[in-house]
Amino acid sequence: MGTLPKPICTPPEKEELAGRLAKVRALMESKKLDCYVSFDPVNIYYLTNFANNVHERPFILIVKPTGIPVMLCPLLELSHVKTRARCELEYVTYYEVPSPKGQNWYDLYKKLIDKKARVGIESALPVGIAKETPGTHVVDDIIDEVRLVKTEYEIARTIHACSVVDLGHEKLLEVTRPGVVEVLIYGEVVRAMMGKTLMEIPTANLIVSKFVGAVWPPALSHDPHIVPQPVTAMEEGGPHVSIVAAQIDGYGVEVERTLFLGRVPEGARKPFDIMIKSRAAAYAMLKPGAILEDIDRAARKVIIDAGYEKYILHRTGHGFGITGHEAPYVALGDTRRLEPGMIISIEPGIYIPGEGGYRHSDTVLITETGYERLTRTPDTLEAMTVAL
Amino acid sequence: MGTLPKPICTPPEKEELAGRLAKVRALMESKKLDCYVSFDPVNIYYLTNFANNVHERPFILIVKPTGIPVMLCPLLELSHVKTRARCELEYVTYYEVPSPKGQNWYDLYKKLIDKKARVGIESALPVGIAKETPGTHVVDDIIDEVRLVKTEYEIARTIHACSVVDLGHEKLLEVTRPGVVEVLIYGEVVRAMMGKTLMEIPTANLIVSKFVGAVWPPALSHDPHIVPQPVTAMEEGGPHVSIVAAQIDGYGVEVERTLFLGRVPEGARKPFDIMIKSRAAAYAMLKPGAILEDIDRAARKVIIDAGYEKYILHRTGHGFGITGHEAPYVALGDTRRLEPGMIISIEPGIYIPGEGGYRHSDTVLITETGYERLTRTPDTLEAMTVAL
Repeated sequence: MGTLPKPICTPPEKEELAGRLAKVRALMESKKLDCYVSFDPVNIYYLTNFANNVHERPFILIVKPTGIPVMLCPLLELSHVKTRARCELEYVTYYEVPSPKGQNWYDLYKKLIDKKARVGIESALPVGIAKETPGTHVVDDIIDEVRLVKTEYEIARTIHACSVVDLGHEKLLEVTRPGVVEVLIYGEVVRAMMGKTLMEIPTANLIVSKFVGAVWPPALSHDPHIVPQPVTAMEEGGPHVSIVAAQIDGYGVEVERTLFLGRVPEGARKPFDIMIKSRAAAYAMLKPGAILEDIDRAARKVIIDAGYEKYILHRTGHGFGITGHEAPYVALGDTRRLEPGMIISIEPGIYIPGEGGYRHSDTVLITETGYERLTRTPDTLEAMTVAL
Repeated sequence: MGTLPKPICTPPEKEELAGRLAKVRALMESKKLDCYVSFDPVNIYYLTNFANNVHERPFILIVKPTGIPVMLCPLLELSHVKTRARCELEYVTYYEVPSPKGQNWYDLYKKLIDKKARVGIESALPVGIAKETPGTHVVDDIIDEVRLVKTEYEIARTIHACSVVDLGHEKLLEVTRPGVVEVLIYGEVVRAMMGKTLMEIPTANLIVSKFVGAVWPPALSHDPHIVPQPVTAMEEGGPHVSIVAAQIDGYGVEVERTLFLGRVPEGARKPFDIMIKSRAAAYAMLKPGAILEDIDRAARKVIIDAGYEKYILHRTGHGFGITGHEAPYVALGDTRRLEPGMIISIEPGIYIPGEGGYRHSDTVLITETGYERLTRTPDTLEAMTVAL
């Protein structure tokens, strides 16, 4: 176990953002790009600390090999951008969508990029913006690539965010009882997490703060991506599966648990145990250099060997960062290697129709020598069986 | 004043969705498209009643001139889609992102569209999906075009949603007092709106339900798109500007008011009055056939004639539908004509740095003969001056 940075709640300093930009520019250079265009609000937030909701008025960040990056944004949002951005930006504003002829965003945008430039664009760039982008386009997710490995600052923010979801899960266990409906759990868990967040980060940016607290009761827990209804009620026994996920002023994390109310049905012990063993097989492989798909394969093997292959519905995990769901993926087909500073979930699942689902998920940091589980919610069957 | 449909809270029937699909297909035919691809979750929701959050696992809807539309989706989400979709769909599922070679979403996707097809795609389609799309691409926002004019069902849903934000604004006026902080107002207003929504629509889809209640106090109200901080406090006097906006189980609306606490500063009377007159000038033009930019021009003229041109920051309005912000736009440059069944905001604004902002916004239906304001929150200076 290494030394973890102390949790941080403050916005990034200029140096932090300058470091991220330098990494993007290094990749631009290696790929011989004259320019990189970012529209994805997540990537713009990563480089500037400014977050926008996507609507018909585009925000576009233009990065060239040198000089101050240019932010094209609606006039209406200029002071909003300036309030949150924590790096130097040059601003080009347009009035509205639409604007009178010659004054539209695309009229201004076209002037900002040379027709002969080799321009890197994101996979996520809408074709409507791509077609207004001058130059030769190269689809290459450079900023996403830089985001894969977290800086010490990002790790410290993530550790703080994990303390919030751990508190949320504590509250969840307090209120989840047979007969209690989803909306009550949601309300209590979200209130607890919002309260802690706002006490600790009074200037939290609400655009990048999200809170989810929910429990899939046994009737639904075999179906992990169904959305429970507000009046869905909890039941005695289990398996229930909880999700406490949050983006805390820009840092996404989650903790999820298989839990039982009052008693553990006899038939639930084996799949719970297999899930725990599958998870342990994944954890056992977490260290720099491990290939992501090998970890998924090891976790799957435990489930397959138990005769449960048909109950696998998803990969073993995904990355975290400024979102709660991003690359890299602990999945067959992801041949990248773990590096220190990656943050991933480990959450192999078993989903048995008619019986229920089994999944624990944690937010896990890859360290120089192995890993550190950043979410600290207990995970044993005993701890996850609520006495009634 | 015509006869408005009664509010509706139930999901669309098959016939409603079949009607929408038929309109999309009619446009496909007129544009000689062999296929239309939709990725935008808003458009997919419009045609199917299924809503997804966008993440790395794509959902793609493929519509051909005849036959059942195809939904390409992750295995993990299949039952989620089936639970919410209220039209016939053929399903093609892929396992994960990524998947082993040959089993990725794009491997399956490519087989669903003929290489020689003329394929309509949305402006919002990410280039990463466009590059996997076979055939000749034509960027044409057909579904968005169909969405411009609402069906009677959509109007009835919107009328219901307006009753929710009107209640939210009533609660907002109850709690907004000098010294009260943003997060308290937000909490009370959102709780009131969520309570009404869940009582009336127990099966509400939370993915397409959003609630916002906030007040920009005089120190911020000149800056309409800044995001107030949770601890921002209200002040005596004004102008404050409120925003109560919601998406109620898939239908987006808003009501916004300029309001005062205790007293109206002398200097605020003139700009308030000009805003009211500008708004009246816009309303006076609302009927089928009116050109959208002409309405904006008329509203602007009142403000410009009062010497306030430099305090204009945005257009007069935008459309509503299954989102709270969409085409058409009441803006210079939008040369389309109003049609019965369009739903728009009317919200000319005046923003004076150092003094504050002035804007009322309502959700307004265009009828056969004129318009009907669907949000009913009072709008006079007297009604918007809270006695302390």
